[in-house]
Amino acid sequence: MRMGLLLFYCAVLARASETPGPGGSNSDAATVNRFFATSLARREAYEQLRVLTSQHPGRLSGSRALIGAVEWAERVLKSMQLDRVYKQDVTVPHWERGALESVQLLSSSGQAQPLTALALGGSGPTPAGGLNAEVIEVRSLEELASLPPASVSGKIVFFNRPMAPGAYLPGEAYGGASDQRNRGPAAAARRGAVGALTRSLSQSLDDVPHTGNTTYPPDTPKIPAAALSTLAADRLSMALAADPKLRVEMKIHSKWFADAPSHNVIGEIRGTEFPDQIILVGGHLDSWDVAPGAHDDGAGVVQSIEVLYLFRALGIKPRHTLRCVLFTSEENSLNGATAYASAAKASGERHMFAVESDNGGFAPNGFELGSTQGNAHMRAARWRSLFEPWGIWHFRKGTAGADVGPLMLQGVPVAEITPDSQRYFDYHHTTIDSIDKVNPRELQLGAAALASLIWLVDTHGL
Amino acid sequence: MRMGLLLFYCAVLARASETPGPGGSNSDAATVNRFFATSLARREAYEQLRVLTSQHPGRLSGSRALIGAVEWAERVLKSMQLDRVYKQDVTVPHWERGALESVQLLSSSGQAQPLTALALGGSGPTPAGGLNAEVIEVRSLEELASLPPASVSGKIVFFNRPMAPGAYLPGEAYGGASDQRNRGPAAAARRGAVGALTRSLSQSLDDVPHTGNTTYPPDTPKIPAAALSTLAADRLSMALAADPKLRVEMKIHSKWFADAPSHNVIGEIRGTEFPDQIILVGGHLDSWDVAPGAHDDGAGVVQSIEVLYLFRALGIKPRHTLRCVLFTSEENSLNGATAYASAAKASGERHMFAVESDNGGFAPNGFELGSTQGNAHMRAARWRSLFEPWGIWHFRKGTAGADVGPLMLQGVPVAEITPDSQRYFDYHHTTIDSIDKVNPRELQLGAAALASLIWLVDTHGL
Repeated sequence: MRMGLLLFYCAVLARASETPGPGGSNSDAATVNRFFATSLARREAYEQLRVLTSQHPGRLSGSRALIGAVEWAERVLKSMQLDRVYKQDVTVPHWERGALESVQLLSSSGQAQPLTALALGGSGPTPAGGLNAEVIEVRSLEELASLPPASVSGKIVFFNRPMAPGAYLPGEAYGGASDQRNRGPAAAARRGAVGALTRSLSQSLDDVPHTGNTTYPPDTPKIPAAALSTLAADRLSMALAADPKLRVEMKIHSKWFADAPSHNVIGEIRGTEFPDQIILVGGHLDSWDVAPGAHDDGAGVVQSIEVLYLFRALGIKPRHTLRCVLFTSEENSLNGATAYASAAKASGERHMFAVESDNGGFAPNGFELGSTQGNAHMRAARWRSLFEPWGIWHFRKGTAGADVGPLMLQGVPVAEITPDSQRYFDYHHTTIDSIDKVNPRELQLGAAALASLIWLVDTHGL
Repeated sequence: MRMGLLLFYCAVLARASETPGPGGSNSDAATVNRFFATSLARREAYEQLRVLTSQHPGRLSGSRALIGAVEWAERVLKSMQLDRVYKQDVTVPHWERGALESVQLLSSSGQAQPLTALALGGSGPTPAGGLNAEVIEVRSLEELASLPPASVSGKIVFFNRPMAPGAYLPGEAYGGASDQRNRGPAAAARRGAVGALTRSLSQSLDDVPHTGNTTYPPDTPKIPAAALSTLAADRLSMALAADPKLRVEMKIHSKWFADAPSHNVIGEIRGTEFPDQIILVGGHLDSWDVAPGAHDDGAGVVQSIEVLYLFRALGIKPRHTLRCVLFTSEENSLNGATAYASAAKASGERHMFAVESDNGGFAPNGFELGSTQGNAHMRAARWRSLFEPWGIWHFRKGTAGADVGPLMLQGVPVAEITPDSQRYFDYHHTTIDSIDKVNPRELQLGAAALASLIWLVDTHGL
């Protein structure tokens, strides 16, 4: 494309008016535009994300990396001369992958072929020397339930339903396939299976395995469970079609440890008029053990910090207390969010609004808002015209993000920012969720969108 | 982010209703949804883009690569059993970079430091043995014009105004900085400069130089001109601040050849009711000589082909003739587009609508529509609600794309698809505009959006 040429054809018409709609004044538009233009001229959120992901990758609950990330976050917030920076004690689970797992396809000729795999978070270990068993492939938990006992018992159950391609939002396809990872291994264990394999939750055809949590009810054996890359899943499926008696060898060295201490990290700018009323912005510090955690959720962490920076940069003192909360242990317990909400309830703190960034650091296109208290929160949609010049066009009723969910259940109106999500699940819970997948401008747009929404709520109420 | 958990908090509310707005019927919505769901389940456009960019990179006018790309395009269209596939003769310019250029900073101590650079398209060569001169840095053509003759004559003029960061659309910042590349070298030559360097037109701070066209009026010496990477430009600027007398050595081996034959490649599905009325969809086959040309504009090429595939896949026979035009020589002459429009005028062909994809293969978010004939073309905005469930939310008055521009000047209503553009200029006219920067789903969404708009125009008129 040669853009210079276009001027030859006709004058550029204004792409998007800055004239506010019914819900916003001209001065509202001016402030929102300042948030965005200021944020786009900065690189600090990206630079912080580079530091977080390179110095503290694999920030899973119980890990040294998470301890390091908590210290980093506290240091960053303390360097900002906020009104208050503190940590909140949280007890978190502690599971470790141990030595690298392996999954191998053993053909009838005796040849072994490696299948790229990652143990699921929470998986039990294989016996010493590994597990070697036949494989039964299923497409759903329902199909598993319908099988005769003899075809499951003693085998490895292979859940291979792909994420459906046709939905616009990959998150919907993820929701439609994730029961296999979340509950599949436990369901297989209850049918007498000795192991479980699941197709990675990705729409990308590649050799990158995606881990994630799996849960076993207390009475269920924690059989070893691993996710295969989508290409490895296809390979295994084709091999099974040719030889239903083939065997797979799994070696997983995972271990559960006693619960560990961790912390939510919190920084505040005290409100000038209503200091006891809190507007929260947050993301989660932890990541999967193998993941740099750039989009999930380093982006949300640095954007939440950047919101505080942007208020400072614009010289705006919030009327309500603006609190940045960097939650611990979202990925495998939600204990950080639960502890935060419990403490808030116990102390009688009033949260006016809580907004979360945990959908990746891509270009933002809207907000989803949730509340258990009627529809008043949807009045935020009156600000839509202020955001459209910056590519943010929808305000939808939605679910709460994971970390603000417990607050919503206490009656707090909540929101989450929704970025473009086509690439999100290509990287989710993998080794490749790294800084090179994040665009600095897209990251800064998200921070500006959060700051703008918070400023509007702070100024006008929801 | 753990999406499974969200179901615990509250049921997912419908994200976007499929109920059409005033402009679309339920059956319109059903067809549009089929275009998108069908396209998302395919990978063919991405696979074609992989072939085009790996087998025919560097498809500049006059190159063997462009000849190969023309043959590839004709082969692909002929394999589709369309009603008509043909080539249109176009004469194109032929400029070659020759041996790799080099630009070196020579410090007063005599040490040479390489500055990553690419000659601009159209640049003249340096003298045998290279060019060695002092450098004068300016921020604009106006600043250059204001300088006393002695400070410019015999020197290399270094245009170093960055793309402004604060605008939402990088294309606006590009438009605000590109005069330096387009007209800067000629302006410097007219002031007696012996060479020109320009800061790459990118908002990314990296060591990737971006080429592009520069033009010299007939009476102006074609002084050698190269683009520096943004990091190299910063390095040179800092070195100049420390030592205004430093010298730079440039070696450019470019050459102009006689004009070359090339072709637009065209495939048609004949209209069932109005075969003599044409709806055009297109992109351009050529790319810069160093570029794989994945986003610019391999994406537009394969999306235009995919539109024909999608009509076939859905079993839809267009009422008007649906014509896919793959233009030649957009980057450095626009001769393909000009020849096409001239031929259409000469033969009295009636174009009902012409839509172009030349803004990259990222997730689409809207359309820009242009016409010299009043505002009727903006009635396309009545279909907005049909597109919103797929992330496409704006229908704006805008400029024409480069290749449909000459048709617009003949009175044809035109449109271009606008994808998310934050990353576009990171890759534009570089060696890294490669297949790995393209997401298959985003590419297929663009094709579906084009097919849907064309189907609506074909069915209902503009």
